[in-house]
Amino acid sequence: MTEPIIWKKNQKGEFLIYLLDQRYLPGRKIYRLCRNYLQVADCIKKMVVRGAPALGVTTAFAIAQAVNRLPFTVYRSPSKEDFFEYLNKVGKTLVSTRPTAVNISWAVNKINKVVQEFKSFRHGGSASGMTSVQELKEIVKEEAEKIYEENKKMDRKIALNGAKLFSKNTNVLTHCNTGPLATAGYGTALGVIFAAYRQGKIKKVYVDETRPYLQGARLTVWELVQARVPCVLICDNMAGYLMQEGEINAVIVGADRIAANGDSANKIGTYSVAVLAKEHRIPFYIAAPGSSIDLSLSSGEKIKIEERNPDEVRYVQGKLVSLKNVAVCNPAFDVTPAKYITAIITEKGVICPPYFKNLKIKTQKSKLHLKI
Amino acid sequence: MTEPIIWKKNQKGEFLIYLLDQRYLPGRKIYRLCRNYLQVADCIKKMVVRGAPALGVTTAFAIAQAVNRLPFTVYRSPSKEDFFEYLNKVGKTLVSTRPTAVNISWAVNKINKVVQEFKSFRHGGSASGMTSVQELKEIVKEEAEKIYEENKKMDRKIALNGAKLFSKNTNVLTHCNTGPLATAGYGTALGVIFAAYRQGKIKKVYVDETRPYLQGARLTVWELVQARVPCVLICDNMAGYLMQEGEINAVIVGADRIAANGDSANKIGTYSVAVLAKEHRIPFYIAAPGSSIDLSLSSGEKIKIEERNPDEVRYVQGKLVSLKNVAVCNPAFDVTPAKYITAIITEKGVICPPYFKNLKIKTQKSKLHLKI
Repeated sequence: MTEPIIWKKNQKGEFLIYLLDQRYLPGRKIYRLCRNYLQVADCIKKMVVRGAPALGVTTAFAIAQAVNRLPFTVYRSPSKEDFFEYLNKVGKTLVSTRPTAVNISWAVNKINKVVQEFKSFRHGGSASGMTSVQELKEIVKEEAEKIYEENKKMDRKIALNGAKLFSKNTNVLTHCNTGPLATAGYGTALGVIFAAYRQGKIKKVYVDETRPYLQGARLTVWELVQARVPCVLICDNMAGYLMQEGEINAVIVGADRIAANGDSANKIGTYSVAVLAKEHRIPFYIAAPGSSIDLSLSSGEKIKIEERNPDEVRYVQGKLVSLKNVAVCNPAFDVTPAKYITAIITEKGVICPPYFKNLKIKTQKSKLHLKI
Repeated sequence: MTEPIIWKKNQKGEFLIYLLDQRYLPGRKIYRLCRNYLQVADCIKKMVVRGAPALGVTTAFAIAQAVNRLPFTVYRSPSKEDFFEYLNKVGKTLVSTRPTAVNISWAVNKINKVVQEFKSFRHGGSASGMTSVQELKEIVKEEAEKIYEENKKMDRKIALNGAKLFSKNTNVLTHCNTGPLATAGYGTALGVIFAAYRQGKIKKVYVDETRPYLQGARLTVWELVQARVPCVLICDNMAGYLMQEGEINAVIVGADRIAANGDSANKIGTYSVAVLAKEHRIPFYIAAPGSSIDLSLSSGEKIKIEERNPDEVRYVQGKLVSLKNVAVCNPAFDVTPAKYITAIITEKGVICPPYFKNLKIKTQKSKLHLKI
């Protein structure tokens, strides 16, 4: 499997981040070399890299890369204050790239927290300022690598938990891209499909092309073909017809954010598929890491939907398909109310309704577990 | 409004057919000049002209053009037998262009019938063969022009019947293209929207882009902008989100074929929109000429769905958007069961459920009316 994010140290001791440019897939396989966090921020903005978990990993690496080479201070070596000021600035820049992508701010907060904990722990210690900055850099690097590794482990757990829900000869439909490209691991919803396929349960995967950005047509198809899983590409408006024909037995998608009551935000078009699945009594599953569950949100109504550039609808791969100035509506996500969701699959297990109770239990359990 | 079909006689007495090439809209406005029916047949095959009623009108003009210049007969002037043989050949060629388009064979049959009636009426008369062929040519030309004019009148009636169903400040959603380009008249579903807009009832029209052929993005948007009706282009998968947000108050689409029980075949994606409309308690209307009602079909299950070229999904305007050889499902139509349809609007009036009874009554009424 082609790695979407490569993290390397060169001979000069610099950290390099190579991002597989997902905008040109599946036609061309181009890696973008990022030598600093501004280049990474630019890549996130331009959708070179996308997918909630992959954005978290990219952000963590970008911070580690940034603090590894603190900006040159003319009269003195960088102090701990310089370090924290810079860390703060880098974090803000990265968060501003795609304000609704929670995983970016999640990664920024996670690293900040670890660094703060280390600082308090060392507070009053005898280490010189210089050594301390070096140690802080090391802490950040270790945390970034940990985020990456944990991400992979989590994906495997989601995949195995989800695969249990499938029975033999299933034709499954998926929307958008939730494979290794999106998570820098094994994938979430697509990871479940891979695992179920290996267990001999999947006959065929129907892939929604996922307009306007065509993540399904470009990325999911590419990942399934690479993994030799039989797949069929369809336009988003064909799912209803195939369900009516009895051609689809299950739907599985990812989620960008899950509220306390189970309402789930995901790529635009997910809600329509969920309604169609309910009408045809087809199970509709969400697969996502526990970090996507946001218990502070009582319901999905509180989730603000990002409106993207209208040209994504007017143009397809640079080709104008309508009038240049036609008004366009281009929401990036929609929210699927909990009542349409058969089960939510996370690394902690399969969560069934009532979600308000069960999401809380699962989250609390894992917290207890972490304390032990 | 730009005419999709122009029918003209030049100074030499030849009939010319100019077809607006809908494949290049809205980017370029190119008319294809057809000097003979083979050129027209080629244009139909290549989708220069499309839309059920527009295909009927085009076919009628192509036949009139063809018989106006019967092929050169070396030793004698063309006889009535030559005329009928040629008429038959032309009709067969036109029908073979798009076998599932009922309006092509409908136009061929209509002209054949009129000519046959004229022939029996004149049978045994004193007119010479030559005069008779000339008269037959004239009959065909008149019938073609009548089809064109009746088409326009029918559209106006559909529009006015449908507009009554709308109340003030309506945001309406439509799928595919059902405007003047599709009917060579005023439009069916889009005609209703135009009429309701002129009556001050429409605030905004949401236009599904209608993958894979993008008739919504390319043609409907163009027609609405030309008519200065406020419109917003969306991807097909966004309709559910907008309904959830309360942004859509009504849906109106066309139909290619309506069964005796009200089940309606229309452009792929229509069924999904209908399910979403039902889920959100939004009225879902079909607007189509009475000729689309096929009482010989007891239900929509009997309608065979045409599977089109997979490259229509793999490529968008010549640009590959997935892997070249990925398996594709590309049904051209789907069938919306009657239970999702609030009302069917035809030139004869608004037909409400139960359709099995009411479609029959309306059809019989109009037959009685014709007999008087």
